[in-house]
Amino acid sequence: MNYRLTMQYDGTDFHGWQMQAGGRTVQGELTRSLSLIEGSEVVVHGAGRTDAGVHAEAQVACVRMSRELSPDKLRAAINGNIGRDVRITEAEIAPDDFHARFSAHGKTYCYRIFNERFASPFWARYAHHEPRALNLEAMREAGRLFIGEHDWTAFSSAQTDVRTRVRNVTELSVGERLCERGRGRLVEIRVSADGFLRYMVRSMAGALLAAGRGESDARTIERAIESGERILVAATAPAHGLSLVEVHY
Amino acid sequence: MNYRLTMQYDGTDFHGWQMQAGGRTVQGELTRSLSLIEGSEVVVHGAGRTDAGVHAEAQVACVRMSRELSPDKLRAAINGNIGRDVRITEAEIAPDDFHARFSAHGKTYCYRIFNERFASPFWARYAHHEPRALNLEAMREAGRLFIGEHDWTAFSSAQTDVRTRVRNVTELSVGERLCERGRGRLVEIRVSADGFLRYMVRSMAGALLAAGRGESDARTIERAIESGERILVAATAPAHGLSLVEVHY
Repeated sequence: MNYRLTMQYDGTDFHGWQMQAGGRTVQGELTRSLSLIEGSEVVVHGAGRTDAGVHAEAQVACVRMSRELSPDKLRAAINGNIGRDVRITEAEIAPDDFHARFSAHGKTYCYRIFNERFASPFWARYAHHEPRALNLEAMREAGRLFIGEHDWTAFSSAQTDVRTRVRNVTELSVGERLCERGRGRLVEIRVSADGFLRYMVRSMAGALLAAGRGESDARTIERAIESGERILVAATAPAHGLSLVEVHY
Repeated sequence: MNYRLTMQYDGTDFHGWQMQAGGRTVQGELTRSLSLIEGSEVVVHGAGRTDAGVHAEAQVACVRMSRELSPDKLRAAINGNIGRDVRITEAEIAPDDFHARFSAHGKTYCYRIFNERFASPFWARYAHHEPRALNLEAMREAGRLFIGEHDWTAFSSAQTDVRTRVRNVTELSVGERLCERGRGRLVEIRVSADGFLRYMVRSMAGALLAAGRGESDARTIERAIESGERILVAATAPAHGLSLVEVHY
């Protein structure tokens, strides 16, 4: 049986998604829990390999199990023996050809910025703190340049384990709202694409932050996209502001 | 100079507001920081003594300092030498007769409940998890009984360090909304009164939870208010769902 699992995690205390020796990871935690249920080692595939500190509100994974279990029981069994900072919100029996990563045709990420002079005790784990007032119009203007099919060399890790750095960004919005808990302005950058390179959203967020502070402008971002020169791009924004919010199938 | 400080804190790692030997408290942390700035011991008064685990989104405190400091500098100085789980959001010079506790004529608390089968990794510190679907209409009906001036003996700690247990509840609402981060239904009980007894909001929340689960009803709550019998009241709801959201002056 092929199972599809949807999950949330607080990435703060994880060394990211991908299993590795000597570090607590979400894939590692899930593999341990599912192997215990199966009685032998299983292989868990995730839709996206989130980095250390990055959160997920609806990460998707798939796993093949020899026994047929009711999805609700499987969900409860996993939640019963993993850390409280990761929760399976839904388990379903998936078609045999479903694969969390290869069946996905896109993802949406959200980058959150707490934009007040003071840092928020409630958002310290989930939003990057920017004390200077951000100009949202400048961020939106710069953000529009990201829409479409581009080579994202300037906005990704220098590692070369991918065939192409071309990705199609289908949506990008810069929104703001008052925090529900405590006071304060929360700026949210939501971006959807058919795929993302490593550090791509955080590089985009860093560039938009620089535009919002008036330290960079649309022209610089345009040149970076065209030339692929990383030197033109502002610092990568920190991991804890980032959340994987949806995987599109 | 009399200063008025507004602050937020994540109560998770505090033994409540009130200073005590051998436990980290918000008043203790503030006193240490302000005494360092003053050069001698100062006395910090808070508007309300929140219990261990209870959060604050706008707690108010007052302190007298011998030197005149710019409020912004004072705010920055305190934030620079206290834990990141407490933040001064505003400092102001207050009239000489201002007292955080005695000048207050009311407070508003919010009790949050994450109401899904699964627990949320993002709300584990800030909302009580109730896996059974709550009937909000039943909670609202029961909640209406709390409005007005009543003797809250059945809904407070048995400790008798108060002259009267009569308090006037001016507002109570039971709202719901979708969580911004992650999915899920968040139920919020907001209650305002001219003053609160110890455990009063958490007792009210426990009673409303029981009503929402169909285990108690308006009649039982009515009898508890009238008789003052604690035995009629459901278990006190856990501290981490509670936040002090406003102090009224």
